[in-house]
This record gives sequence, structure tokens and C-alpha cells, in this order.
Amino acid sequence: MTSLPAVDIPLLAEVLQRFLAEELRASGLSGYVCGLSGGLDSAVAAALAVRAVGPEKLRLLALPGPTSSPESLAHAQEAANTLGVRLELVDLSAPSRLLAQTLGCEDDRLRFGNLLARLRMVALFDAARAHGLLVLGTSNKSEILLGYSTLFGDQAASVHPLGDVWKTHVFALGEYLGVPAVILQKPPTADLWPGQTDAGELGFDYLEADPILYYHHDQGLSEAELCAQGFPPELVAKVLATYRRNRFKWRPTVIARVSASCINVDRILPRNPRP
Amino acid sequence: MTSLPAVDIPLLAEVLQRFLAEELRASGLSGYVCGLSGGLDSAVAAALAVRAVGPEKLRLLALPGPTSSPESLAHAQEAANTLGVRLELVDLSAPSRLLAQTLGCEDDRLRFGNLLARLRMVALFDAARAHGLLVLGTSNKSEILLGYSTLFGDQAASVHPLGDVWKTHVFALGEYLGVPAVILQKPPTADLWPGQTDAGELGFDYLEADPILYYHHDQGLSEAELCAQGFPPELVAKVLATYRRNRFKWRPTVIARVSASCINVDRILPRNPRP
Repeated sequence: MTSLPAVDIPLLAEVLQRFLAEELRASGLSGYVCGLSGGLDSAVAAALAVRAVGPEKLRLLALPGPTSSPESLAHAQEAANTLGVRLELVDLSAPSRLLAQTLGCEDDRLRFGNLLARLRMVALFDAARAHGLLVLGTSNKSEILLGYSTLFGDQAASVHPLGDVWKTHVFALGEYLGVPAVILQKPPTADLWPGQTDAGELGFDYLEADPILYYHHDQGLSEAELCAQGFPPELVAKVLATYRRNRFKWRPTVIARVSASCINVDRILPRNPRP
Repeated sequence: MTSLPAVDIPLLAEVLQRFLAEELRASGLSGYVCGLSGGLDSAVAAALAVRAVGPEKLRLLALPGPTSSPESLAHAQEAANTLGVRLELVDLSAPSRLLAQTLGCEDDRLRFGNLLARLRMVALFDAARAHGLLVLGTSNKSEILLGYSTLFGDQAASVHPLGDVWKTHVFALGEYLGVPAVILQKPPTADLWPGQTDAGELGFDYLEADPILYYHHDQGLSEAELCAQGFPPELVAKVLATYRRNRFKWRPTVIARVSASCINVDRILPRNPRP
């Protein structure tokens, strides 16, 4: 009872592909645009999109900033090659530096990292508007529950095919979908400053955190119950502290309700046009 | 039956102030930051915040772009003076121009307008992070239902005190709260390019649209029933077409659900830390 339940990976891939095909059809738009970081999540999201709607309906952008590693760009190129889709390069180094100077955050790596993640969102939604596309998101369930993302940055997308998929299963999807080995084997990183890794910042890695999050979030086990199941108490405490600290990111915007028809409170409104 | 129901404006102001005070308390942060455009919505949101948490817990930013009218800045300054809060100027002209060149959208006013609205969001969330603040949103219910906003731009905020308030009632709140007359009297504009007005772009003004939206969205009257009530058929058709066309903005991100614990589908997660 200290690991995730088994998942049928080919079936999961099939379900996510149908989701992507159906969302595109319902939107009436002509394809997806995705930022390819050189990491696993975006490589898997893009691979699902290619299988769902075909390579000609997917645009891939590489969006490096001033401190992005050249290796990341090489890995993104390798992922794009595998998918048979051209990788377009939009270098955000100069505009991100100028904006950081304007805001006075050029020497604060956390603020600069958020700024760069949000400029990537701006570039992706601009491409979406220019070409009539949906923005393909790359967030996974582990990252969302831990709040390891930038609000209105990488968290912002039209659809999140992996938003309910544990990182453990994103790895398995990556293997199944033929993501290049170099991407499968490297440690997850937001690549917002040199040497950054998710595990270094979080203090644990996703494969350790996932079963704890699953038994807590999905199955309702308390901290004491998790420890009684055999999870290391120190790890449980660290994972749950992060889970609690970043919960404001789960619901980024709250509207003051003063009617019986408050948007997305009283009414979950249909997103797509009806015939 | 062709106007909005009457609202007790002092009571509405009181409810919204309590909402702002409580959201700040629950967040554990130290105040609000708001972008002051020189228009009505941000002047009203800021006035509510001052009454809710006091002027010393509110930062006000003016965030002009290359085509913003100097009059807007003067009006923002007047609103800030009335509230007794200093207005900080962060000029986004140079970074917005450089980013637009990088993305190739400098000659497309719609794409450039979206870009500028999103850079304002970046500046506000950066200030929020730097000083431990919540971002005070300024969207109202009419604007949200009509989709007259930029996704992940002006639509993005920590809280929207006016998000369930019709524009008609925002005007009344503005009068009640002592917003400067010059702001109450000018036509609503996003100020994203010279001469732009909301009514010019929408083809109708909010005071005309509000009762139609209310009887349709809140009371469920069909297009034919609205016309039978005495609303002009051409106006009804225009308002409802906009309402339907922009519905994707009501729910900007969709997660593919593959578990019984999908975030914000199966679980509406609590936003604030629990004791």
C-alpha cells in the first residue's frame, strides 16, 4: 500500500488522445500550439496531440530565456524531430531582460523565473490568436497538487491533457509514446535558472511524492495514517507541507458572489459553442 | 420588465468590502495591489479596497503602454489622489514594443492589445510577489459574460470584487463611493489603442446590454421571450451573439479527467490555508 495503483498506459493514452481530438473539434479552431521545453511533460503532451490530430495540426515553439540551457533546446529539437514537426524558435531573452529591468526584478531569480514563465504564456496565446489554435498545456497532476508552477504562466493553457495524470504515469506514457531516451532519463527541471531541478527545489522527487499525494488527496488518509502505512514520516511532512502551502494556486481567482448566478460558482458555464 | 432589478448600493458596497477584508485575512498576505487604468472599474475596485483594508494596505500602479492616452494617466492620478494612495508609474511602452517585435505582432492592434493586457498582469503579479500582496481584479459581470477581456490578462487576478456586479451597478457604486466625476462621465474603454471604446467595439453599450444579459443569463428567457418583453430584436441578437461567441473565456482551462479526484472538477479545493 505504498505505491500508486497500476494503470493501463495504452488505454490512458487513448483516452487522452480522444480528449484532445474532441476539444479541438468542439472549439472550431484549427489545431494546437505547444511550447516544447526539452523536458518530459511537453514532449508527452505533444506526442499525444500528434496522435490525436496529426502533425500538421500542431505548432511547436521553443521559448528560451537568457538563462535557459542550450541542452534544453537540443532536447526540444530531438523531441520535435521524433514527432515530425518543425520546431519554431522564439527567443525571449531580450524582451524578458528588458521587462525585468522595468519591473526591477532582474536580480531576483524567483521573480525572474515567474516573469519568464508568463512571457512564454504570452507568446503561446499570441501564436494561438494569430493562427486560430488552442494552447496545449503541459501541467501534470503532481505538479498542480504541489503548486510547482507559475500562476498564469505554465499553468495557463486552453487544455491540460496531463492535468489529472500523476508524474509517475507521465514517465510511463513517455516510454510508451517513444519520447527520446535522453528526455526520459534527465531530472525534471523548470529550467528557469542554471542548475535548477524540481527535486532540488521541492526537497523530494515526484516518484516519492506521488503515492503520498494519491493516498492523501484521492484516498483521504491523514498524515498519521500515511506514516502507519509505512511512508517515511519526514518525507510525508515535507510533501504535505508543500501541498498545503501552495493550495491558493488550485483556484487562482475568486469572484465575490452577490447573485444567484455567479459565474463558475452557481453556474459552470459551457465552454464551447452549441449548435 | 426591461430594466435591472433595483439594488441597495450601500449594502452591496458593504458586502464587497467585507469580502475583500476576509480574503486578505484568509490569505495571510499584507495587502492588495491594483492597476489603475483611469477608468471606472479599477477606480471602484480600489475605493472598495481602501474602505475594506485601509489606504496603507493598497498599492496602485499605472501601467501605460505606447498607445495609452495621457488623459487616462491623469484620470488614474485623480482617482489615486481621491483615495489618498500614491500612484506608482511603471511604463510598459519599451518592453511591450520589444516583445511585440519578437512575436511579430507590432502591427496587429488586437494581438498587441492582448499582449499589453498580459504584460500588465505580469507587472501586477510581480509586484504582488515582491511585496506579499494579492492582485485586486477589476472585471465586472457584464464584461465577463460578454467576454470583453483578455484571457490571462485583465481577467487574471487573485480576487474579483466586481465579478458578479453588473456594469450598471458599478456606475452606481462609483457615484456612491465618490469616484471623480470625470471618470464617471467618460465612455468605457480598454485604452489599448487610440480612440477605442467598449461600445464602439461591442456595437452596444453596457447599460443597454445589462437587462438583456440579466433576463437571459439569470432568468433564463430565450431570445424570442426577450423580444416579446419589449427589447429591440436587433439589440438582443447582437448582445446574445457576443455572449455566445466568447463563452470559451468563462472557463479558460479544461483538464482531461481520468480519475475520481480531478482538480476543480471532482474537488473544488479550498484556496486558503486551514489552521
